[in-house]
Amino acid sequence: MLDLSHISIVLVRTSHPGNIGAAARAMKNMGLSQLVLVTPKHLPNGESIARASGADDILQNAIIADDFHQALAEYELILGTSARSRHLPWPLKNPKEAALTVLESPQKTAIIFGNEQNGLSNDELASCHYHIHIPTNSNFSSLNLAAAVQVVVYELRMAALMQHEFVNEPKALANHEEMEGFYQHWQATLEDLGLLDPSHPKLLLKRIRRLFNRSHLEKNELNILRGFLSAINKRK
Amino acid sequence: MLDLSHISIVLVRTSHPGNIGAAARAMKNMGLSQLVLVTPKHLPNGESIARASGADDILQNAIIADDFHQALAEYELILGTSARSRHLPWPLKNPKEAALTVLESPQKTAIIFGNEQNGLSNDELASCHYHIHIPTNSNFSSLNLAAAVQVVVYELRMAALMQHEFVNEPKALANHEEMEGFYQHWQATLEDLGLLDPSHPKLLLKRIRRLFNRSHLEKNELNILRGFLSAINKRK
Repeated sequence: MLDLSHISIVLVRTSHPGNIGAAARAMKNMGLSQLVLVTPKHLPNGESIARASGADDILQNAIIADDFHQALAEYELILGTSARSRHLPWPLKNPKEAALTVLESPQKTAIIFGNEQNGLSNDELASCHYHIHIPTNSNFSSLNLAAAVQVVVYELRMAALMQHEFVNEPKALANHEEMEGFYQHWQATLEDLGLLDPSHPKLLLKRIRRLFNRSHLEKNELNILRGFLSAINKRK
Repeated sequence: MLDLSHISIVLVRTSHPGNIGAAARAMKNMGLSQLVLVTPKHLPNGESIARASGADDILQNAIIADDFHQALAEYELILGTSARSRHLPWPLKNPKEAALTVLESPQKTAIIFGNEQNGLSNDELASCHYHIHIPTNSNFSSLNLAAAVQVVVYELRMAALMQHEFVNEPKALANHEEMEGFYQHWQATLEDLGLLDPSHPKLLLKRIRRLFNRSHLEKNELNILRGFLSAINKRK
């Protein structure tokens, strides 16, 4: 079972009740359930229900809050969507990266979307651990609110499916310590073979790191490669 | 510059003009421009323009067609979105995989979305090279049409951005022939080191292939690794 129950979608100062309904539908489609509405301009109404198209339960169970900070008080990880970096030098992730971060741990997580016209305020953005930026055409960058929610919850589901696949296949990934040991083994072997350029000894190793970090080595793959390096070391 | 101009979004038998407008907005947000409407129930109207929210040009330039096959006649790559596999054993991709396939070559490409209630017909799905399935909650799987378009065009933009990054950095990827030569070199080296299990000689090599195929080796990385294998071979 995919578990996305630790993630809430928080809509702040939403103007259009239709967008609240469409966001609820997008959430339910992707397996999320907790909606929080902070000072919406209108409470969910008939238009919301029409656009929710069967996700009425999400609207009914939505938490309505009248204070931003109080609504977020219990959340351990907070991400805010932002159209631009707004001069705030904040850790910025695209939706794919953000989803991977959120799925890394079961912390109580809020993903916040601002008002249709103005987004989140700088104060609200400053309450976030990360900002999420959805890449758009710079000449036409304003996404519909429910469309932005759709993109983010889609990436959450994709990340959860990927994680689920890993769990089912019991593939354990190598951890940091194992990877560092692996790179030390490479270094020793490359030195031994006389392959390191004396003037730039670290360059080759950097490329090796870049390649294998990209591959997300599984433990058993790492064992194969270490066995290979050991076989070379023995041949003197 | 990102170039997504070879990709058309084709909406078939759309019921709600609002969805046409929202789809146009999603397209323009992600940098696509060619919309094709096959026998829409209503032509784009005021509701479409309201939901397009400034993407009027896409609506104005939309091609309206009254025959499915005629509308697609000139397309070289056709992908159809499908809620289920519908017993058609067709090559199925998720949106991410589909976007990578579409971006691989500048073929004239159509991505087709069916009617809100019934999707594409089996005959229409059978005209496609690939089917795209957006993973959804099995208890609530019907996505809003414009939301489905949003997810697909978002992935197209993400794939184009990734490709663009590669092009800017001038990183050439190793081609099939180079990879096959590389794996032969591995095989010879593993044999030479006595590392192949005589009862399952191909198993280890299969794991090596799986690992490096996943990494999408660049030409210069492949050269580094071949140099490494050659250094081992020389040490006898």
